[in-house]
Amino acid sequence: MRDRKGQKGHAVKLKDIGEFGFIDKIKHDALIREYLGLVGIGDDCAVFRVEEGKSILLTTDMLLERVHFLREVMTPYQIGYKALAANLSDIAASGGLPKEAFVSIAVPEDLSLEELLELYDGMKELARKFDVNITGGDTTTSLQDLVINIALTGEIEEDLALYRSGAKAGDYICVTGFLGDSAAGLDLILNHRKEMHNFPQLIKQHFTPIPHIEQGRAVSRSRLANSMMDISDGLASDIRHISKASKLGAILYEERFPHSEEFQKYLAEFNPDYLKTAIGVGEDYCLLLTVSQQNYARLKEVLNNLGHQFYNVGEMAEGEEIHIVYKNGRKAILELSGWDQFKEH
Amino acid sequence: MRDRKGQKGHAVKLKDIGEFGFIDKIKHDALIREYLGLVGIGDDCAVFRVEEGKSILLTTDMLLERVHFLREVMTPYQIGYKALAANLSDIAASGGLPKEAFVSIAVPEDLSLEELLELYDGMKELARKFDVNITGGDTTTSLQDLVINIALTGEIEEDLALYRSGAKAGDYICVTGFLGDSAAGLDLILNHRKEMHNFPQLIKQHFTPIPHIEQGRAVSRSRLANSMMDISDGLASDIRHISKASKLGAILYEERFPHSEEFQKYLAEFNPDYLKTAIGVGEDYCLLLTVSQQNYARLKEVLNNLGHQFYNVGEMAEGEEIHIVYKNGRKAILELSGWDQFKEH
Repeated sequence: MRDRKGQKGHAVKLKDIGEFGFIDKIKHDALIREYLGLVGIGDDCAVFRVEEGKSILLTTDMLLERVHFLREVMTPYQIGYKALAANLSDIAASGGLPKEAFVSIAVPEDLSLEELLELYDGMKELARKFDVNITGGDTTTSLQDLVINIALTGEIEEDLALYRSGAKAGDYICVTGFLGDSAAGLDLILNHRKEMHNFPQLIKQHFTPIPHIEQGRAVSRSRLANSMMDISDGLASDIRHISKASKLGAILYEERFPHSEEFQKYLAEFNPDYLKTAIGVGEDYCLLLTVSQQNYARLKEVLNNLGHQFYNVGEMAEGEEIHIVYKNGRKAILELSGWDQFKEH
Repeated sequence: MRDRKGQKGHAVKLKDIGEFGFIDKIKHDALIREYLGLVGIGDDCAVFRVEEGKSILLTTDMLLERVHFLREVMTPYQIGYKALAANLSDIAASGGLPKEAFVSIAVPEDLSLEELLELYDGMKELARKFDVNITGGDTTTSLQDLVINIALTGEIEEDLALYRSGAKAGDYICVTGFLGDSAAGLDLILNHRKEMHNFPQLIKQHFTPIPHIEQGRAVSRSRLANSMMDISDGLASDIRHISKASKLGAILYEERFPHSEEFQKYLAEFNPDYLKTAIGVGEDYCLLLTVSQQNYARLKEVLNNLGHQFYNVGEMAEGEEIHIVYKNGRKAILELSGWDQFKEH
């Protein structure tokens, strides 16, 4: 038997300890919070209560090796971290607090037990940070690719949840972080590996982004915003979801797109397709929201006072088209549509 | 491009309509129940309320092509049906009612849109039968194998949930259906295809089993049982979970194992390893429960009056060993441990 680095491997494999042996190993540290009435871990179902007056949030994401990540490029720790981060970002986008994570994982033969535990360590670090339990899941073999599915629950007060459908014409379109850092990080990782060390923030933003749970919570509790989602496929794609759900158009202003210093340096050095990198690739995992012009300054203050970023990048408009106003003042329909993995690119 | 049957395929593919086009297609009929306060379909999270005084149940299962099913052997309809059936069985095992299903699916290039919709039809038939919404999920590409992960929620009154850990010494061990039909069906499908038509019930029990939701509900509402789970890996394996969780041993009586007429006929005709087929392969998806000797007759009456099967196959005992009493009266430690896919068989 050979491990994935090609040497003869004597690493412990999942089959040496079996599924139930593995569950015993990952149980440790998985419950970092004594949850209200949580019982039944390791049972057919997890059983948990919900605080009175709160609604349940549920989001689920499936990640496949070679489609969503490469094991040659990411460490198991980074894979586990990022899988949970993507789900946390969805809970953030509703304005809720994350609670219980259910991790299904299909494990190929060449992944050692040590690597698998490292993957769980990546998830557990993020879980600890946001008070999330790893409550259950399913573990199975895979003949080839590593597959991870996380279903994550959250809670929110019934009247505070924010949706994509609430935007109003005239609303300012705002984001809670820099655009394009993750896309630039990915380009460095895939195409400029020798330069990676000069761009630590871009790399970090791609591998281990911090989900905007605190920002989402501040927005929902302020009751000032009209709609919210997270940027996973890129602003160019995701603003279309708010537009479609709210039956409106939108105008984006290129000159307002917020960028980090490292991103500016990356642009100067590698001269990539700017618009595609900034708004067409995604995985920013910051929040995209709309707020009335009247409430804008107050919401910006709420977020800035908590030490969070908040930038106005456009306005919702009547109609259904997405327009962009370029830096040179030219206004055009935005053709770029972001990431839809099923369409040929 | 060739379809999976080898002919040149002109079938519509997922990439022709994109992820969001696909979501529009499966939305139809997905919500078969106007759920209490359900909003946010197609949003970052599903948002739903829970009736006051009820707990949430959550179970999740991942199924991979070539590990859990073969596309050469099962129709897309059967794959979809069985994926949801396995999850429904977990909700049944807690005594609850299923509510919201979240379906993540990784779709290989050679699966046509028509086949994919057929897979959803299989899920939807079962969802309709048990009043379950297909509430959300995630759709992604796969480079090789079809992968399905379902996360299913349920509800249960807080004091009615049944666990593996509640068994008491002396409890009768009971099952709500025949043992081994699915295992026999699988053997016919894989090794005796020409004889399949003579065993329609065994084939049905393997491909499209009916989860024991009604039985589980009757058991939990009766408040007569002490512990419950479903048989997915075979009685020989699953009784070990109740034993371990309840810190007890168990005695099974071979002569009491309930079998269908077709199973008896299959045994006579093919002479397989009896014990392995009956209790070592699994996917029976009936319920395994323990009940005090005092409550046994009343619980049997409850189930039989509703037209359901109920059989006593053994007793919980002090200690931690699982014993079997063979038909010839010999008592021995049960070596057979059922299905653990990670262990070498």
